[in-house]
Amino acid sequence: MDTYDKVLELARNRGFIWPSFEIYGGASGFYDYGPMGATLKRKIEDAWRRLFCVGEGFYEIEAPTIGVEAIFEASGHVSGFADPMTTCGVCKESFRADHVIKGVREIPDGLSKLELSEIIHNENIECPECGGPLGDVYDFNLMFQTWVGPGQKKRGYLRPETAQAMFVDFPRLLRFYREKLPFGVTQIGKSYRNEISPRQGVIRLREFTQAEAEVFVDPKDKNAHPNFAAVKDFKLNLYDEDAQLNNGPPTAMAVGDAVAKGIIANEYLAYYVALTDVFLVTVGVDPRRLRFRQHMKTERAHYATDCWDAEVLLERFGWVEVVGIADRTNYDLTAHQKRSEADMSVFVPFEKPTKVSRTVVTPNMAVIGPKYKGKAGKIMAALKNMPQAELGKPEVKLNIDGEEIIIESGLFEHKTVQEEVSGENIIPHVVEPSYGIDRVLYSALEHSYYEEMVKGEERIVLKLARQVAPITAAVLPLLSKEPLTGKARKIALDLKDRGFYIEYDESGTIGKRYRRNDEVGTPFSVTVDFDTMEDDTVTIRDRDTMGQIRVPAKDLARVLGDLMASDRPLADFGERVDLPQ
Amino acid sequence: MDTYDKVLELARNRGFIWPSFEIYGGASGFYDYGPMGATLKRKIEDAWRRLFCVGEGFYEIEAPTIGVEAIFEASGHVSGFADPMTTCGVCKESFRADHVIKGVREIPDGLSKLELSEIIHNENIECPECGGPLGDVYDFNLMFQTWVGPGQKKRGYLRPETAQAMFVDFPRLLRFYREKLPFGVTQIGKSYRNEISPRQGVIRLREFTQAEAEVFVDPKDKNAHPNFAAVKDFKLNLYDEDAQLNNGPPTAMAVGDAVAKGIIANEYLAYYVALTDVFLVTVGVDPRRLRFRQHMKTERAHYATDCWDAEVLLERFGWVEVVGIADRTNYDLTAHQKRSEADMSVFVPFEKPTKVSRTVVTPNMAVIGPKYKGKAGKIMAALKNMPQAELGKPEVKLNIDGEEIIIESGLFEHKTVQEEVSGENIIPHVVEPSYGIDRVLYSALEHSYYEEMVKGEERIVLKLARQVAPITAAVLPLLSKEPLTGKARKIALDLKDRGFYIEYDESGTIGKRYRRNDEVGTPFSVTVDFDTMEDDTVTIRDRDTMGQIRVPAKDLARVLGDLMASDRPLADFGERVDLPQ
Repeated sequence: MDTYDKVLELARNRGFIWPSFEIYGGASGFYDYGPMGATLKRKIEDAWRRLFCVGEGFYEIEAPTIGVEAIFEASGHVSGFADPMTTCGVCKESFRADHVIKGVREIPDGLSKLELSEIIHNENIECPECGGPLGDVYDFNLMFQTWVGPGQKKRGYLRPETAQAMFVDFPRLLRFYREKLPFGVTQIGKSYRNEISPRQGVIRLREFTQAEAEVFVDPKDKNAHPNFAAVKDFKLNLYDEDAQLNNGPPTAMAVGDAVAKGIIANEYLAYYVALTDVFLVTVGVDPRRLRFRQHMKTERAHYATDCWDAEVLLERFGWVEVVGIADRTNYDLTAHQKRSEADMSVFVPFEKPTKVSRTVVTPNMAVIGPKYKGKAGKIMAALKNMPQAELGKPEVKLNIDGEEIIIESGLFEHKTVQEEVSGENIIPHVVEPSYGIDRVLYSALEHSYYEEMVKGEERIVLKLARQVAPITAAVLPLLSKEPLTGKARKIALDLKDRGFYIEYDESGTIGKRYRRNDEVGTPFSVTVDFDTMEDDTVTIRDRDTMGQIRVPAKDLARVLGDLMASDRPLADFGERVDLPQ
Repeated sequence: MDTYDKVLELARNRGFIWPSFEIYGGASGFYDYGPMGATLKRKIEDAWRRLFCVGEGFYEIEAPTIGVEAIFEASGHVSGFADPMTTCGVCKESFRADHVIKGVREIPDGLSKLELSEIIHNENIECPECGGPLGDVYDFNLMFQTWVGPGQKKRGYLRPETAQAMFVDFPRLLRFYREKLPFGVTQIGKSYRNEISPRQGVIRLREFTQAEAEVFVDPKDKNAHPNFAAVKDFKLNLYDEDAQLNNGPPTAMAVGDAVAKGIIANEYLAYYVALTDVFLVTVGVDPRRLRFRQHMKTERAHYATDCWDAEVLLERFGWVEVVGIADRTNYDLTAHQKRSEADMSVFVPFEKPTKVSRTVVTPNMAVIGPKYKGKAGKIMAALKNMPQAELGKPEVKLNIDGEEIIIESGLFEHKTVQEEVSGENIIPHVVEPSYGIDRVLYSALEHSYYEEMVKGEERIVLKLARQVAPITAAVLPLLSKEPLTGKARKIALDLKDRGFYIEYDESGTIGKRYRRNDEVGTPFSVTVDFDTMEDDTVTIRDRDTMGQIRVPAKDLARVLGDLMASDRPLADFGERVDLPQ
């Protein structure tokens, strides 16, 4: 068993993650979060909200997971969100064309359908299931499709990313933020990707959770993040395009230097790379197994100016992308403006008004009016909007309701005036940090998984970060009998009332209960013993060191609160005692 | 404009709720939660979690929104989750058959498709859109359908309720809870209902959020809820079946009495009715516009023994169901056990082992063996499992692999023995409180919406409960200039760091900013004025009374914390001052 198998086994047995619809044979790409997993996931999401919603002040929105077709036509997903597929002529099973080729021969990414088809035919690559002949390669769109309402009149798709709703809602969001840039909007929710045949367990899901922030900014301000000073000395493990080309290692570099040297394109992008590092380490990713890899020019979306992936090292899968931080420019808003004809621009005032020269055309109404009667109004409007280039000519041709009308230059005057302009309408750029919450969660599990020998016995322990561990403290009577159980239950209830995640557990030996809590990553265990009945003190055991301290029961809530709000070791909070594990 | 229109107008303008995909013309039954709405929604969900997950100790799980077909075949949704539909022969538009009939004639609920078709034809009911003839009534399944993976091999549905995952996962959940009843499991997430033509705005959504708890209990224990004493004197506004039949009013009745008199079927059901009342009032439903209506025998699902809806009075829609609390018996687990052949039973030990008499059959192997050779094993097994009734007869007929074999009674002996049995395997019953979070949210908005006259001007205010208001406090410099702005910003930042939902606002007159915060339901406004610069005190304004107190700035976090943890009035926390509104 490799670490992935071990983590998944623990995850199944301890209520973190298990395959969905197990009693009906399951379906690849779908997993359930059990009691421990869903709690861990929610705490990871809350940690993200603390950073982005509370900290950065980016409000969260919640849009439907079903979207109408126009959205994904504009975004390019209807035409472009596809994988190359080939189907077996005999068993009719379908496969990703680039996957069946792998192992047969070393191939570069980004081959065309034609090239993939040629390789399959020339190399006689057969169906991995039945050995039958594979057909020509075609595009399979990865969006789940459905119909909204009766019949097949209104096509809908399950969103492939949460981002689009924030672009589609841009006009309302801009009004909410009182027409001022920059502002950020976030969304946490389900996204969907109808993978052809996902084979990487919890790493490649058909239904997954994204946390995305869209930061709308004036492109002129991308190098002026208001809070950049706070992160500029923060060290990042950067694997830039050059290093990848030269097969060099990543470099530890300060955020400020990375921007100054032009390695990260701008301050906004760099700021969210730094914030991503903070987030991932906070929720339990091992910093030594974390790097930021720049997208190569060849793999970047054509509109993106720069893009960095947070990659996490996993034993079975190697370096896996868990977050993408991209400068999407004004691509999305422009695409939706074009498709919907809604105004996606923001009026940005100049620092000071500037003078602009403009040509003003004044038609001679006394002549045009009587001469053209009913058409005079439209003619005058057309003259006022006439292209600059026409002005010097002896006559101009106008198209009025499909009819060509020629006006001599004597029928209007024109002059150039100076005008004051206070600002301009721009379409903002978007910097987008996009988090795959399920992969973050799995990484936190794998990076916190330890097998240790304790007094000749194996101990499995999840060293989850305090802030995200599903249970903060287990309350355990030393023996399963009164008055210890009553006292322990009372303590547990009191801590629950104060909002702590507490588990009361009285079944099995104390050692067995410690181990059970080690396996679900409970950072602290509170034990009620016979001394408690005498002097009202309890022990608190630290999951990682297995060291214990003795504290008055009345101080428990305060100590746990302080422990949760800091990284301080348990030993700081009371007298060390040594008791059997 | 009625209240619904007014609330929706405010909701659109202030960032609570707006129609989804507006720039693409929208789609009925889909709404977005904007920055204020999503925050309100999350706080309502968190209030629910505090009650059910932390308080009751029911862990949350998170399963996919897409489910495979077998689940919904077992649950009955594939065959039964449908509305009667009729389609116009001319314009091809489809309508709910029971809706097009309404207004034409008074009809009872629950008519068959045939009866509906007859009414449409006999009364010459025409297409509401074009006046064309309506066709025969047929079933339209309300689940959104999709395909999992390439091709059309694996049908999937968007779940119509979150509940099914908790039934499907029962074997794993039972193991997590160490094979002991009762236990509860919860899920909060999206559910889907592909309405034929939803026309009730935010009240009838095609994609909505449910919070559901499934409480698994031994049917023998349904009248022994461990915490029933805590709720038994709690008064509920009950509208039972009798009162409805007699057109009588609802009755205020203690929970304990309702169970004692047999009005609510059992303690478990009654306990969650009470908890529902607590929840709804906590998040802002007006108790005078809240009642619990018992399902009539005719409207109950055939398997449900009793079911109560929490109904909220809304101006436009009348009494609307926002929560259903049902005793689903063992219907769901039995259905999934049958379809999947997974074991959904729980071993429940008797209080003390009981003696059971059992008949033991002992075949005469010395004769049967040589006589029947290869079939002897099967014959002996069949004899041991023979029905009691066969035992007295002179010979028994056995069916062995389709062949009838007659065994004389002399070839076996039988005797009755006493055995000790320590328990039995049962399929638990399920009590399910099921919350429609979107309707709860809209009810909280409508019930907190007030128009008041203040000094001759209209003030619109959302008197949202403190615990769920999107912004807890607005921090406002009296004037938009230094040093007031710098000081106010610092105060806002400090409060944010302590986890409060804070908005800093310096644009417009102070009166305008108070009104803006009244409209989004911000309970408290903190104002920084010139006195603040002298003595470091600030004012706190109460949204509802508009009264203000003066407190030291350093005490702000403590005062806000106390206010959020209680219902105490602001005036309790400092000296009253009167300042312009």
